[in-house]
Amino acid sequence: MKKFEEKTLSSKKIFTGKVISLQVDDVELPDGKTGKREIIKHPGAVAVIALTSENKIIMVEQYRKALERSLVEIPAGKLEKGEEPVLSAKRELEEETGYECEKMEHIISFYTSPGFADELVHLYVAHNLKKKENAAPLDEDEFVEMLELTLEEAQTYMDEGKIQDAKTAYAVQYLQLKKAMTS
Amino acid sequence: MKKFEEKTLSSKKIFTGKVISLQVDDVELPDGKTGKREIIKHPGAVAVIALTSENKIIMVEQYRKALERSLVEIPAGKLEKGEEPVLSAKRELEEETGYECEKMEHIISFYTSPGFADELVHLYVAHNLKKKENAAPLDEDEFVEMLELTLEEAQTYMDEGKIQDAKTAYAVQYLQLKKAMTS
Repeated sequence: MKKFEEKTLSSKKIFTGKVISLQVDDVELPDGKTGKREIIKHPGAVAVIALTSENKIIMVEQYRKALERSLVEIPAGKLEKGEEPVLSAKRELEEETGYECEKMEHIISFYTSPGFADELVHLYVAHNLKKKENAAPLDEDEFVEMLELTLEEAQTYMDEGKIQDAKTAYAVQYLQLKKAMTS
Repeated sequence: MKKFEEKTLSSKKIFTGKVISLQVDDVELPDGKTGKREIIKHPGAVAVIALTSENKIIMVEQYRKALERSLVEIPAGKLEKGEEPVLSAKRELEEETGYECEKMEHIISFYTSPGFADELVHLYVAHNLKKKENAAPLDEDEFVEMLELTLEEAQTYMDEGKIQDAKTAYAVQYLQLKKAMTS
């Protein structure tokens, strides 16, 4: 899909960081005029809907410096270089929660902020969880606390703004839809 | 919510653009060590679920330079400086689709990429649409084509990857959940 394609006239790298990089492109717009696009490059990420045997949703609370507050989110993390998303999902689940699963089912991948960033989040459902002994540790700059919430509690957390990110909101709604369709 | 707060030791502004700005913060982690956080500041955005009198979902196709492809999305756009989100939602709906509505109902606000950006998207449902004569025009660097999709068509677009952004995926699922709960 290339409708209204914007051709790159020049591209200037502004910043290359550990997580993101920033470039500004000069583009030719569909009407022949020129414009500027500010673009963030991101390696992509995974997120995991994981339910315990009591049907509770596993969440993690962590501080988000960009927001200067903590959020409760489903387990998630960045893709490492060259890493297959499904393996990344298993790794993040283990690191953040200590759980492993028999099967990771891919349900959707979406761009989080297509207006300025290429971050693509791959969302999975983890089936048949079990606690792993000697689970892989978190990255050294990661601090998270695990929670287990019923679907009703997750909805309350959303109403209260404790859950307030797109992937977790999608995940909670996914479980609500599943429940509505089977009841 | 300040759990695992990361105190700012210093903050360096790297870039200030038309849409986003970038800073890198040195932080004190909860264990007393130091770390770096790459942070994108964004003015926030609105997105609108708008149904025609035939119950079709209004979408717009536009080119997303960050992805080098076009996407089909619900009408959306950035907040202008000091603009109230509900007024921004009305403005974007009118500019991108030529429709106005009697009532904008707020349903959720979510952070799109809390790991690196503060962008908050406010999602609305527009009630009682009508075509507006002399609707406000698009920004001069915006090119969009309007589509009207049934819920089934929107799901097909998702399966085919034509719809692949978080806010639109959430919106389609929202309408599916609403349908499941009333049928």
